[in-house]
Amino acid sequence: MKKKQLDLLLLPELREILETKDYKELQEFCESVHPAVIAELISGLTCEELWTVLRNITPGLRVEIFSHLDESLQVEIARTLRRDELAGLLADMSHDDRADLFKKIPKSLREAVLPAMAMAEREDIRRLAAYREGTAGAVMTSDYAALSPELTAHQAIERLRQVAPDKETIYYAYVVDRDRKLLGFVSLKDLILAKRDDRVEDIMHGEVISVQADDDQEEAAHKIQKYDLLALPVVNSEGALVGIVTYDDIQDIIEEEATEDFHRFGGLTYKTDGLDLNIREAGFLTMLKKRLPWLLALVFVNIFSGAGIAYYEKTIAAAVSLVFFLPLLIGSGGNAGSQTATLVVRAMAVGDVKMSDWFRLLGREVAVALGIGAVMGAAVYAIGIFRSGPEVAVVVAMAMVISVLFGSLVGMSLPFLLTRLKLDPATASAPLIASIADIGGVLIYFGLATWYLKDVIAAA
Amino acid sequence: MKKKQLDLLLLPELREILETKDYKELQEFCESVHPAVIAELISGLTCEELWTVLRNITPGLRVEIFSHLDESLQVEIARTLRRDELAGLLADMSHDDRADLFKKIPKSLREAVLPAMAMAEREDIRRLAAYREGTAGAVMTSDYAALSPELTAHQAIERLRQVAPDKETIYYAYVVDRDRKLLGFVSLKDLILAKRDDRVEDIMHGEVISVQADDDQEEAAHKIQKYDLLALPVVNSEGALVGIVTYDDIQDIIEEEATEDFHRFGGLTYKTDGLDLNIREAGFLTMLKKRLPWLLALVFVNIFSGAGIAYYEKTIAAAVSLVFFLPLLIGSGGNAGSQTATLVVRAMAVGDVKMSDWFRLLGREVAVALGIGAVMGAAVYAIGIFRSGPEVAVVVAMAMVISVLFGSLVGMSLPFLLTRLKLDPATASAPLIASIADIGGVLIYFGLATWYLKDVIAAA
Repeated sequence: MKKKQLDLLLLPELREILETKDYKELQEFCESVHPAVIAELISGLTCEELWTVLRNITPGLRVEIFSHLDESLQVEIARTLRRDELAGLLADMSHDDRADLFKKIPKSLREAVLPAMAMAEREDIRRLAAYREGTAGAVMTSDYAALSPELTAHQAIERLRQVAPDKETIYYAYVVDRDRKLLGFVSLKDLILAKRDDRVEDIMHGEVISVQADDDQEEAAHKIQKYDLLALPVVNSEGALVGIVTYDDIQDIIEEEATEDFHRFGGLTYKTDGLDLNIREAGFLTMLKKRLPWLLALVFVNIFSGAGIAYYEKTIAAAVSLVFFLPLLIGSGGNAGSQTATLVVRAMAVGDVKMSDWFRLLGREVAVALGIGAVMGAAVYAIGIFRSGPEVAVVVAMAMVISVLFGSLVGMSLPFLLTRLKLDPATASAPLIASIADIGGVLIYFGLATWYLKDVIAAA
Repeated sequence: MKKKQLDLLLLPELREILETKDYKELQEFCESVHPAVIAELISGLTCEELWTVLRNITPGLRVEIFSHLDESLQVEIARTLRRDELAGLLADMSHDDRADLFKKIPKSLREAVLPAMAMAEREDIRRLAAYREGTAGAVMTSDYAALSPELTAHQAIERLRQVAPDKETIYYAYVVDRDRKLLGFVSLKDLILAKRDDRVEDIMHGEVISVQADDDQEEAAHKIQKYDLLALPVVNSEGALVGIVTYDDIQDIIEEEATEDFHRFGGLTYKTDGLDLNIREAGFLTMLKKRLPWLLALVFVNIFSGAGIAYYEKTIAAAVSLVFFLPLLIGSGGNAGSQTATLVVRAMAVGDVKMSDWFRLLGREVAVALGIGAVMGAAVYAIGIFRSGPEVAVVVAMAMVISVLFGSLVGMSLPFLLTRLKLDPATASAPLIASIADIGGVLIYFGLATWYLKDVIAAA
């Protein structure tokens, strides 16, 4: 809370500095606060004002603040810059951020800016930008420190000292041979603890955990998390080191993947088209494109519920009061199913549940669903007695137990089935489960009613 | 894939070593593979076998492997150990893992093992275990390196070299005065780049980002993520350094928080009672306790849908074929609402959307929902014509547009309302939104039908 108020006071101060055009004070101001805070602060300014701030501070600071801006804002600024300004900015950025931005700007801009950059940077951008979105290659950086195996610990530290300012991390250095084949790694801690003349090849860890450049980014995140790494080397198909993925990138990956699952489970189509579905920024058409497909598909699923009702129309006409309990019954089956699917989908996402667990979990789910069904059946029996008498109450209570069981088993099995079909288990979304449970609920309820109340119906 | 097969080959090898009781080979085997892999491998063994493995390897390796085991397994093993074995194991563990385990074992075991430990460790455990679950204090470790401001860079590196093997990280060292008040921090990189005789107080960063020990763990995770930190210092109310939270802990926090939101959004009660709801391990009663509250609460919400139906019973009796479209209409409103709530709840969780965005988002949502409603209304109009003629088709299409709008606005507004009431926005779960949308759908549909089909009803 104290922090927030501090930030609020910073904005008027910045505005004042901008009005007086005192760029020396601007530099001092930007140095005194963390770049992430400055980025947040200036996100509210117009593009023009924003670039005024960035233009009048030192390049090192400029690029740090720029890196903390939202991606969409970065792209917007990039569009307004002169070609040489953009080239300069790109040259200063960290390699992975640079490649990311490069992929997001329009093609014409890319073609305009490339010739203005140095050869080595052009190559680096081309290489990093070549990997498919969502792969380890696409999130890696080429800013790593590499060492030869024959260096001594002392020489290695000296070497790291020289390259340090440029590198994303010097806490891990990778040992490579002449063909850049990855031999092992040493941490700065290992080097500090080693004797001066120990050789890198003797103190390095030879068992290196790595990923392939075209592996999924989730695989990289999973390894960094499992092995508590600061950075994970990325190799190409020949085993040559091409980059590293650092711990701070994977925090974003974990969050991204959770968002993807969340959205998919909520019944939104989620293609890995590079851009998240951000509710603040998505336009009308994007929203329609993401929301309509499942809503329309579910209309057709729901027609089966309608067909079930049509089949039992005679029963309904004979005892219209049955309809009172319809939303309650189909809703409860759907809700129980959503709960189960929620548990399974999330457990699969974090790796707690695997395909082989299905049968065991299904057995336990039958027990739990019957327990839940019994309690809920008792509750609706009471309501049924009160509202429509003992005969309807029995039908409603039985239908409740079976509907909850049916919904729960659908919620349990569908994520496994989808995984088997090589689809994301989160595609078993809450709306889909609810709609399938509806069909089951309608058939169970009116089927039971037709059977149990046959005398009433015959009399009508 | 290749990696998986390798792991499968390791298990028979381990089993063979255990049978021959060749403990020298066991040690070598365990050294040759990453502790996380060994932990995974031995998780399938019985507790007794597992401890046979752990007992016969060096303490350093034992504790590393033990730390990678699942929490529930750790507790199980702790229960089977002799008191001195457990004390020895606890003494070797990292401070935060130790305090976590300590909190999870039964009280009697805690009391039995404490006297067997050294005074300093007892104090450390007591202190760390005192923080409430879910706070920064509860996830921090006291394994950090601290430096005096008057040291030179060279002295500081020497000091870190001495303490390095014990500390969770030496890449950041914290500068404190005699009262342990936090003055600043230096990274090992700063020290390596500094001149030999530079003083720590001159090269340290004075603007330290920190959290209070009783701040929420999410706050700590958020800061580490925002500022790309390796570790975040935790201070008490006097500003004295009491611990650090490291980057690898926050990966777990991010995942935990996402799971909590996911579960809550799926209609499960989720209290921060220290243990996750793990579908693989939760027993029958735990499941009932987590699932029944919302299911029962929603039964009572659904009764309102029933009441709506009862109110329009005359309309239904006059045109039973209307019931055909009921699941479709109430389902679509619920599905559209779930989608919207999904987007809002997740955007709030990652900080993309704030309370102040409500009004602006609501305006956009009206436009999007009307667009979606129009397309879906056209779809059901076609079905309606085909099934029940033009009069019913008009009613169904109009009801669809209004139901989708109603569901979407509920899905948009409820998370904001709950936030305002200081509840978790994810409490606006898919089942809750669906149930509320049901009530709206019933009233909208039969209300429109009663008005538009009044001649048909009067004729019946």
